[in-house]
Amino acid sequence: MSAKQGNCKNKAILLICDGLGDRPSVGGRTPLQAADTTNMDKISEEGINGLMDVISPGIVPGSDTAHLSLFGYDPHTYYPGRGVFEALGADMQLHKGEVAFRANFATVDEKMRVVDRRAGRNGSKELASVLNGLEIDGIEIALKNTTEHRCALVMKGENISKYVSDVDTHEAGSIVQECKPLKEGEAALRTAAIVNEFVRMSHELLNEHPVNEARRQKGELPANIILLRGAGSYEVVTPIKERFGFSTACVAGASLYKGVAKYLGMDIIPVEGATGKADTNLNNKAEATLQSLEDHEFVFVHVKDTDNKGHDGNFEGKRNMISRIDKELVARLKDADAYIVITGDHSTPVPLKRHSSDPVPIVIKGEGIRKDNVKKFDEISAASGGLNRIRGLDLMLTIADFIGYYKMYGT
Amino acid sequence: MSAKQGNCKNKAILLICDGLGDRPSVGGRTPLQAADTTNMDKISEEGINGLMDVISPGIVPGSDTAHLSLFGYDPHTYYPGRGVFEALGADMQLHKGEVAFRANFATVDEKMRVVDRRAGRNGSKELASVLNGLEIDGIEIALKNTTEHRCALVMKGENISKYVSDVDTHEAGSIVQECKPLKEGEAALRTAAIVNEFVRMSHELLNEHPVNEARRQKGELPANIILLRGAGSYEVVTPIKERFGFSTACVAGASLYKGVAKYLGMDIIPVEGATGKADTNLNNKAEATLQSLEDHEFVFVHVKDTDNKGHDGNFEGKRNMISRIDKELVARLKDADAYIVITGDHSTPVPLKRHSSDPVPIVIKGEGIRKDNVKKFDEISAASGGLNRIRGLDLMLTIADFIGYYKMYGT
Repeated sequence: MSAKQGNCKNKAILLICDGLGDRPSVGGRTPLQAADTTNMDKISEEGINGLMDVISPGIVPGSDTAHLSLFGYDPHTYYPGRGVFEALGADMQLHKGEVAFRANFATVDEKMRVVDRRAGRNGSKELASVLNGLEIDGIEIALKNTTEHRCALVMKGENISKYVSDVDTHEAGSIVQECKPLKEGEAALRTAAIVNEFVRMSHELLNEHPVNEARRQKGELPANIILLRGAGSYEVVTPIKERFGFSTACVAGASLYKGVAKYLGMDIIPVEGATGKADTNLNNKAEATLQSLEDHEFVFVHVKDTDNKGHDGNFEGKRNMISRIDKELVARLKDADAYIVITGDHSTPVPLKRHSSDPVPIVIKGEGIRKDNVKKFDEISAASGGLNRIRGLDLMLTIADFIGYYKMYGT
Repeated sequence: MSAKQGNCKNKAILLICDGLGDRPSVGGRTPLQAADTTNMDKISEEGINGLMDVISPGIVPGSDTAHLSLFGYDPHTYYPGRGVFEALGADMQLHKGEVAFRANFATVDEKMRVVDRRAGRNGSKELASVLNGLEIDGIEIALKNTTEHRCALVMKGENISKYVSDVDTHEAGSIVQECKPLKEGEAALRTAAIVNEFVRMSHELLNEHPVNEARRQKGELPANIILLRGAGSYEVVTPIKERFGFSTACVAGASLYKGVAKYLGMDIIPVEGATGKADTNLNNKAEATLQSLEDHEFVFVHVKDTDNKGHDGNFEGKRNMISRIDKELVARLKDADAYIVITGDHSTPVPLKRHSSDPVPIVIKGEGIRKDNVKKFDEISAASGGLNRIRGLDLMLTIADFIGYYKMYGT
């Protein structure tokens, strides 16, 4: 391969297994240690390995801030709030200053107590259309149902703010929270009032809607309210191509990741059967990645379900998903004529059922790499690799230099 | 040696092999791995090893920004532009606000097309004296020929700016570029106009000069124009002794490094035969280092040619130069009664023929060091050393603490 080094430009694949990192639990091993990772291990053996603090040591990243950091955008500067990514990932239009929210169809009882935060994971395009286009205090509301109970909501108009609290309490059994301004001033106060009015109206308009009456008849939970969280305010950022000089594509199923990618100006590659869940079609993702590589220098591939299984505390599920990724995705990608980088966006340890600050393992394979002595891709082996311990924010510059898109600082 | 620890102060030698870091290529090894490094390896075995990002991971350092960082001056704050170092290294006087450039004698044809950016590497003190002292728009121009085709130029006067583009295109065959302002405002506009007029005048005054007529007669390239680049604006910085508390000396051949050292207030030690090239006299440098150590706490020794060989893509040349450094320089320095630190300012991998962001190996040997298990001084072995992966900006403080010039932060 050494013939290609030099001034010739190269390509790169960045595979992010969401929530990949873990802690030793069943049998004293992590799910990654326990999984069948023949292909990942081969990459580790031929590559350079290490640990990565995606934001910084001790910081527990969310998936959104983690991905910003991985793409070289410091979330302390560039994080617009989750709602923006949800709306972009749902293919909704956003303009500067508009405020976006993650929204859920939920079920409440007559006392506005939350019976199910996800309305039995059962959303409805018809119910969403009842609320879409409402106007409250001069602000137009756009609502879109994406998958299952999930929706994105955009407030269109002037003098509104992302600094408002969540209505979604994350806990069943409690009363629907009132939205409160989180900053002084007219905009936050007004936005909180609009949110509260919208939530009230959503219950009023949905509760006795025929769709919900039919559900009740079948013994299903009604989707009789919309709960909002993760307010974000859209800002235009310098596109990733302008930052680093090369074209980028995103191969992902879950909308949050497509939203982050769209926010940064990546090309979003549609992949049939990419669901962001356990049933995702990894073969199609492999195919889409290899095809995207033909007209992009950099392809970001995302697999969500490793994180879901961590949240569920499901060791076997996480282990099996990793084995599937190895067999169905990595096996196909590993011989591409490109640098390959495999890592996670954060740890979601099975024993914790939540994100943690434990650094994630990372491997980079490609021409000219300073191969180290690591032979297994896992959290423990990676610690003695040649990369030592790096930060997420430094990854894109490192990849850019490997693929020949560097800028010298000084002379 | 341990008896000396405690309150007694010590000394340190910092040996920088320019562009030392590399990637595995010939025989799967780096030039440093392939070189005969008996003495460096001994130091690795007795010392603490690691990798160093001279600026930060993924950043490709220039030699000037790299050295600022290594001496504890963050280049993001302290980088004045290359011209300043060139002028200081050429022993020219500089005052606050004056603008300095790196300059080359070059050869152009009658259409102002660059035939040779370096005029056959043949400069002329006589031709430089023709241009030295010119006044354009009230600004006095000082020009000095240093080695071969290389010159430094200083503009003396008020209301001038470093924010102007390079005239030197770095490519033979193209037409001489016009200098353009890189910032709004009078100063940059005026400076660009002065540069353009100077370049025009240099051609007018040099083209038919008897020195060049004589060259043409002998079939040599005329030095018939001066090309400028790397504009810098001189600022006074806190001297390194004031920053760290100890006296410092610089043993270097190439003028850029002497310029950086002078900018920071180091004592520049003249060394006969120190050329910054392959023919440099390493024995004299060793001698100068050991002598300087008698009346300085810290001696910076610089060897340039490892970088040149990387730029040339010359694996054997780089390997052999490293072997020479080991035998002629390190062998002499290794038993000095001082800490010894060996590293590079950046990587210049042979397969790339350019600087890269790959971290450099570093070793520190001296009393009280936490000796690790590394036994070879190279990019791969260093990765498992006790220093792990550090940053250039942290090196001087680390050395300062080892030699007893620390300041406690807090109580």
